Amino acid sequence: MLKNALYAQSGGVTAVINAQACGVIETAYKNQNAIGQVFAAHNGIIGVLQEELIDLKQESSQTIRGLEQTPSGAFGSCRYKLKGIEQNLAEYERILQVFQAHNIGYFFYNGGGDSQDTTHKIATFCQARGYPVTCIGIPKTIDNDLPFTDCSPGFGSVAKYVATSILEAGLDVKSMAQSSTKVFIMEVMGRHAGWIAAASGLAATEAAYAPHIILFPEIKFDPGKFLNRIQAAISLYGYCAVVASEGIRDVNGHFVAESGLKDAFGHAQLGGVAPVLAELVNSNLKLKNHWAVCDYLQRAARHIASQVDVDQAYATGKAAVEFALQGKNAVMPIIVRRTNTPYTWDIEAVALEKVANVEFKMPMDFITPDGFHITTAARAYLAPLIMGEAYPTYSNGLPEYVRCKNMLLPKKLPGFTLTK
Amino acid sequence: MLKNALYAQSGGVTAVINAQACGVIETAYKNQNAIGQVFAAHNGIIGVLQEELIDLKQESSQTIRGLEQTPSGAFGSCRYKLKGIEQNLAEYERILQVFQAHNIGYFFYNGGGDSQDTTHKIATFCQARGYPVTCIGIPKTIDNDLPFTDCSPGFGSVAKYVATSILEAGLDVKSMAQSSTKVFIMEVMGRHAGWIAAASGLAATEAAYAPHIILFPEIKFDPGKFLNRIQAAISLYGYCAVVASEGIRDVNGHFVAESGLKDAFGHAQLGGVAPVLAELVNSNLKLKNHWAVCDYLQRAARHIASQVDVDQAYATGKAAVEFALQGKNAVMPIIVRRTNTPYTWDIEAVALEKVANVEFKMPMDFITPDGFHITTAARAYLAPLIMGEAYPTYSNGLPEYVRCKNMLLPKKLPGFTLTK
Repeated sequence: MLKNALYAQSGGVTAVINAQACGVIETAYKNQNAIGQVFAAHNGIIGVLQEELIDLKQESSQTIRGLEQTPSGAFGSCRYKLKGIEQNLAEYERILQVFQAHNIGYFFYNGGGDSQDTTHKIATFCQARGYPVTCIGIPKTIDNDLPFTDCSPGFGSVAKYVATSILEAGLDVKSMAQSSTKVFIMEVMGRHAGWIAAASGLAATEAAYAPHIILFPEIKFDPGKFLNRIQAAISLYGYCAVVASEGIRDVNGHFVAESGLKDAFGHAQLGGVAPVLAELVNSNLKLKNHWAVCDYLQRAARHIASQVDVDQAYATGKAAVEFALQGKNAVMPIIVRRTNTPYTWDIEAVALEKVANVEFKMPMDFITPDGFHITTAARAYLAPLIMGEAYPTYSNGLPEYVRCKNMLLPKKLPGFTLTK
Repeated sequence: MLKNALYAQSGGVTAVINAQACGVIETAYKNQNAIGQVFAAHNGIIGVLQEELIDLKQESSQTIRGLEQTPSGAFGSCRYKLKGIEQNLAEYERILQVFQAHNIGYFFYNGGGDSQDTTHKIATFCQARGYPVTCIGIPKTIDNDLPFTDCSPGFGSVAKYVATSILEAGLDVKSMAQSSTKVFIMEVMGRHAGWIAAASGLAATEAAYAPHIILFPEIKFDPGKFLNRIQAAISLYGYCAVVASEGIRDVNGHFVAESGLKDAFGHAQLGGVAPVLAELVNSNLKLKNHWAVCDYLQRAARHIASQVDVDQAYATGKAAVEFALQGKNAVMPIIVRRTNTPYTWDIEAVALEKVANVEFKMPMDFITPDGFHITTAARAYLAPLIMGEAYPTYSNGLPEYVRCKNMLLPKKLPGFTLTK
């Protein structure tokens, strides 16, 4: 009897994680000589633990195809990090039981750094118990912080979204600046790394163009320098467009987003670095300003996905299955950049044990010496990742995103209570 | 000697106001037997008053064509409302002098309700002074509050943006809700009318889909009902996606956005209804939530413009010139809906004196009795306006938006100081 495959999504979703799922499922279906049924976990590893496995046979081939153009996690994702095997034996035992109960021989875990670590631990645990299951990690994160791979699927589309958005909003502000808004602040994701903020810099193909200022988590936020830089941009160009990472910190290491906003009852107002910066501009420069917070819109914006990102997403999903069928275990497909212009890349495999707990930090030579913009080196790296437009099909003026039935397989095991 | 034409942009810009400019300029160029040179005012009426007229001959035909796919106001717009003729004779005199100095026989003013009023006054004033100039208003506003016209160019593209954005973000939240964010709040523009918020409702083709709650300025905000409605959505669907107009007000008529956020120094934090609502959810429901503020991104988002909106924008610009050549004066082209399915429309002319100071309010039967969503009638009206995708061309992964040289004509008059 052929072994079945189980695919699970993990962590924050992206515009292309479903394109990765599409690559996994379509490739598994093409290898019916080697792979039995294909299941998806409902809500990621939680679904594995709770034996909530989605029967993908219930989804039409059109729906599976449609995943390629559908943002978010079609089967549900989760924020749930498995602890180490010693601290958390019950959950590893449970995962093994679920694998056994459903004859899982291939496990594909689509997530960021923590998930790759989990995939590695599951592979190690199952091997130690003598249960043969091939565990493959599939890289995914808008944060672009996975090591070895040229970039992380999901990042390129956010990059394209933020660069396009600040290009557009910058033109808007420029056209009104003489008598209206002079400072515009756009907040983007990036709690620990400035990859997304950096990508917005691609819109500034000339110094006069937005964004004029980028605030990175890698650079301590200095209000005085920031305000001076705004004034300089205004005197040169008549307006100033700012992109700020949500994760910028002050000289004391505190998040700027948490620096002092209180509601009427005195509660600290969490989140939103853009309004804090706007208030700084209000108080000190008395300049009319506006601000936007992209939040989930940026990572869900499949309508402006990068074709390169979608291609790489599908390719990593496909490669995951191919690697499994080649007998590779505990590996992750990575994107290897061959050339910059034109951008060419291949997929290779890297051992999960090398991936776990290694962070791909933004090189400091990607940030200009003044700390407020990106360098030529950053552009050379980033530019290829936003290339090409992968438009979804539309119906009645809106993208045709698929919604899966997500019918669960009958359970074979007793229930299980999550440890947290 | 042929009379020249002057085109000016006014008020908040849109994704398609330049498509209107493109329609004006290309149509004027096609009628060189009747129209001499074509100029654009730099920064709207301020440029007229200050005799800053852009020489459009300096822009290539490719640039003029590229305006159709470029958001914002390519020649600059402004927020500057002319007062009545009696209170403000000097400015009307000045406009007349500029018209005379540059042999302006056609004036096209592209703006919202206030601008239409201004166009009417300028027409009246010039006529009274015996100076022959044909003044045509061109409708434009994302607020969709101009009367007589089926919709206002600019609105359809914002509508498509907000509906697509909440569709995408809704899928994102849904996929993570079991273990992460359960409430998502997206703030959209609309200080006085809920047209934009209403348009987001098009994404909810089923009750289970985002947005589950829409907050309109037309409905007094009731925190208790709002929180109950969130809980109801979560118990039904596991998550709740909210779209809130920036202009919602509490029972006392105060803007919710101004209700109590203070910075560290006790200054009222202006703007941002989304963080106020998020804090309400935090304090009362203790549910993990996220929020986004679209701000200028929504009105500049030419990358996801509605084809209908772009077509209507170009058509209104073109019709403005054609009406002028037909000898119509002090009129505005309006869009007349002929049929809903398929959506068919014509352009007609309406007298500016009828337009001035009349507001197109959202019919109350567009809002469901509970005040939290849109009705079938609203859908029938809104759905056609977001139809079709008018993609810009791309280069290096970013939209190819044109930037005009905006070379000014030599001045012929002494300087002029604005009255405010």
